[in-house]
Amino acid sequence: MLRPLCQNLYLSTLKNRQSLVALQRSLHSTNRMSDKTYEDPATIQFLEDVHKIMVDDALVKGTSREAPVVEFRHPEDLKKLLQLPVKNEPATSAEILEDCKRVIKYSVKTGSVQFYNQLYAGIEPYSLAGSWITDALNTNIHTFEVAPVFVLLEQYCVQKICSLIGYENGDGVFGSGGSFCNLMATHLARYKRYPQMKTEGMYNQPILDLYTSDQAHYSLLKAGGYLGFGTDNIIRIKTDDGGRMLIDDLEVKVEESKKKGHIPFFVMGSCGTTVMGAYDTLNEIADSCSKHNMWFHIDAAWGGGVLLSSKYRHLMDGVERADSVAWNLHKMVGANIQCSGIFVKEKGLLEKTNRAYAEYLFQPDKFYDVSYDIGDKTVQCGRKADVLKLWLLWKGKGDSGLSERIEKAFDNSQYLTSKLRETSGFKLVIPEFQCTNICFWYIPPSLRGQEETPEWWAKVAKVSPIIKQRMIEEGSMMIGFCPLSMKGHVNFFRIIVVNPACEYSDMDKVLTEIERLGKDL
Amino acid sequence: MLRPLCQNLYLSTLKNRQSLVALQRSLHSTNRMSDKTYEDPATIQFLEDVHKIMVDDALVKGTSREAPVVEFRHPEDLKKLLQLPVKNEPATSAEILEDCKRVIKYSVKTGSVQFYNQLYAGIEPYSLAGSWITDALNTNIHTFEVAPVFVLLEQYCVQKICSLIGYENGDGVFGSGGSFCNLMATHLARYKRYPQMKTEGMYNQPILDLYTSDQAHYSLLKAGGYLGFGTDNIIRIKTDDGGRMLIDDLEVKVEESKKKGHIPFFVMGSCGTTVMGAYDTLNEIADSCSKHNMWFHIDAAWGGGVLLSSKYRHLMDGVERADSVAWNLHKMVGANIQCSGIFVKEKGLLEKTNRAYAEYLFQPDKFYDVSYDIGDKTVQCGRKADVLKLWLLWKGKGDSGLSERIEKAFDNSQYLTSKLRETSGFKLVIPEFQCTNICFWYIPPSLRGQEETPEWWAKVAKVSPIIKQRMIEEGSMMIGFCPLSMKGHVNFFRIIVVNPACEYSDMDKVLTEIERLGKDL
Repeated sequence: MLRPLCQNLYLSTLKNRQSLVALQRSLHSTNRMSDKTYEDPATIQFLEDVHKIMVDDALVKGTSREAPVVEFRHPEDLKKLLQLPVKNEPATSAEILEDCKRVIKYSVKTGSVQFYNQLYAGIEPYSLAGSWITDALNTNIHTFEVAPVFVLLEQYCVQKICSLIGYENGDGVFGSGGSFCNLMATHLARYKRYPQMKTEGMYNQPILDLYTSDQAHYSLLKAGGYLGFGTDNIIRIKTDDGGRMLIDDLEVKVEESKKKGHIPFFVMGSCGTTVMGAYDTLNEIADSCSKHNMWFHIDAAWGGGVLLSSKYRHLMDGVERADSVAWNLHKMVGANIQCSGIFVKEKGLLEKTNRAYAEYLFQPDKFYDVSYDIGDKTVQCGRKADVLKLWLLWKGKGDSGLSERIEKAFDNSQYLTSKLRETSGFKLVIPEFQCTNICFWYIPPSLRGQEETPEWWAKVAKVSPIIKQRMIEEGSMMIGFCPLSMKGHVNFFRIIVVNPACEYSDMDKVLTEIERLGKDL
Repeated sequence: MLRPLCQNLYLSTLKNRQSLVALQRSLHSTNRMSDKTYEDPATIQFLEDVHKIMVDDALVKGTSREAPVVEFRHPEDLKKLLQLPVKNEPATSAEILEDCKRVIKYSVKTGSVQFYNQLYAGIEPYSLAGSWITDALNTNIHTFEVAPVFVLLEQYCVQKICSLIGYENGDGVFGSGGSFCNLMATHLARYKRYPQMKTEGMYNQPILDLYTSDQAHYSLLKAGGYLGFGTDNIIRIKTDDGGRMLIDDLEVKVEESKKKGHIPFFVMGSCGTTVMGAYDTLNEIADSCSKHNMWFHIDAAWGGGVLLSSKYRHLMDGVERADSVAWNLHKMVGANIQCSGIFVKEKGLLEKTNRAYAEYLFQPDKFYDVSYDIGDKTVQCGRKADVLKLWLLWKGKGDSGLSERIEKAFDNSQYLTSKLRETSGFKLVIPEFQCTNICFWYIPPSLRGQEETPEWWAKVAKVSPIIKQRMIEEGSMMIGFCPLSMKGHVNFFRIIVVNPACEYSDMDKVLTEIERLGKDL
């Protein structure tokens, strides 16, 4: 009898302690929200204030043509402006709102039509709504139990995308970005062909060679270091002037691998390379993969959007022959970041490759159909639900609206390419148009009409970084620049046209703005 | 002269085409928002409506004690209710708002105090604000150029967390979940000791053995399959009744590895195991790692929160001796999902291990200090910014508020443990209290006072799944159940107490609710 008595005493002590703590808290809570719930009007008011700040500063002002794309500060200055330090005592809601304003003020406005810097731009309202709601529901998508709606939405979108690709019995899963999805493809390919490597590791195994073009995304190189293939065994295939993989060179490299006793194993084709926007010729790669028994993966992270357009789908002819496709729906398609998926021809392979049978999550004796517990399709455990931002966007625009979005980006880019071609002082890196990224040099008046010697190119190389600096310092526009060593190209501008709010007049402004900022160089 | 003429004609055709398209669009746009911008009051109204729905349905109603945690529907029924199909034509904003309402209605309310199912619960308003703003700014965090604010916030929080751990010159990076961070640790460890494996792969290399307890998270097993170590080389170390790693067994297993010619390479200690909440004795593991030259990683995904509490920090004594620590700030600390980081004792190792020198992103000739371009610290390329939701929460609560949050969760859990211990019909799986997850069986009246034979246990095993089903069908509460085969335990309840809105009365309700739903069994 002693034990229960002690426990009762303990419980009553605990209860008194809790009352005391509650009293202390209420005395202490002036101007604080840290213990408040959604029953408290102050919490609701705070969220309303946040909404207003976001809409006014990030969305309305942030996407206006008149507002700067960025109010640039160098890192050390910005650190001070942001008032980084967390204190021991709570901040007030008013202080947090000021923090929110500063965060927005000094962040880049990727929703601005003057933002052409990355493979995403513009903020789609329906997709943003999907992101916000996902945050407010705050859950993981590994089981139907905790994410019933998100699991079904993901399955629906995965199947719709498989249909677009042409997979009759395909499957897929969302993941944290295009690199993740490309890496997952190498993992699937390895398990499919050498399942023992999952259990035994890659020791004492035949060396596997993976091929991709010299213009392909660097994530395959990361797979080399990360998944145990070795970066030396990631073989770069030559490309034509437009950046498309040369199949003859693929054949040469495959034969070289065989001579070394390596296994030709995996080819990653690219649909929309990061810099040049090249679409590899998929049917040719597929033929080569069939011939040499290699896994065919397509990195369509950037360029996959053409699957939605009857006008441009031909750029991905042969996509259905790939074993897997990675596609970032947050790029050309306009879903909010992040929204990436890997789509696989063989249903069931994702689970077989990744399954770890965690008994605390995937209990077989649940009362619902546990095939909807999709967590074992990936190497992640907890996983943020990224599908609502796609589904709402897709429903809101319809298939036709997404198709229009893609075609408008191509239309604007074609117009811009023509303008660049006809305007003196601009020089296209690739003569023909191929995607909505366009690479070009600006040649300031002082360098025009001269012989293109190495010295001349060395001067041109310095132009785009200076103009970029001026753009950012003024906040007038953001366009990326980079060299392309593989092709011997010095620094040039790479502009990405993808924001559906862009009009021809915005394209015109790209040229006049660069000319304005660079004509003295 | 012909070429420019043709181009002018082409441009003028394009311009006419664009006018036509614009006209068609405007004729067609009744009730549509697909081409609208934030200049349009209808867009602003839509976002206001979304905000209202989120606040009313997901937050106020969703966190109320009176509302169901879930309105459960089986997958096939839910599919119909959700009106999944995307049509060719755009939906109206009103239709999208109805979709939003349905998504919220049928989603699990993880913010409810009756949600005890996962290692997260409750929705912190400041953190939610951080998530929303991050969405509205829609960018990636790989370069300072596109994410100046987020880069600085992440660096600030990383350094603050390194201080909490006790790293004098540490570094870190956020990533997409605890599994990702645990995997990254094995990758760092491998590069540090065998840098040639990055380039050559794992072929013809010494076999590396990785150790973790039989209660540790399954992500290390996934690392085995994914990173090329092989799941056979992930060695499980025995644990005591509470689930803590037995160092004697670690020593035995290390010697076995050596005898086989394998290299003892990596130990993952756990701070807060997924099921039992066990904290491994870190100093003992550190000693063993020093002795055998093994990398010491700590998976503190769940239990790392105690670093914020002077009262419970002792549970992680020795943490500063680890080479790396993974911590999910979206679990015990309450940041919105996802918010995970890997923290590393050796500054610079993240870059060395992961660097791929993508010249289109990490141009050395930028005009600002490019050491703030942090993208090469990880295997991701584009990466969602996950830090604002932590920083706002931390500032808003202060160090003291986060400490209170952790201590309140422990306080509630201790109270609940005592109640379970003293109430007939409940049986603790682990007699002593160790963390805010508590494992227990409910023994219905029909099974009380009987000998604990295998047949009796077989009956007990069926109890929690049935009660769980009833809970979910009524929407009254969500508590996980699972078996623990390693320990020979049949299905039991695993309750996670972490929502700061929970009071002792909620803890009392856990017992009465289980009794109500299960007393007839």
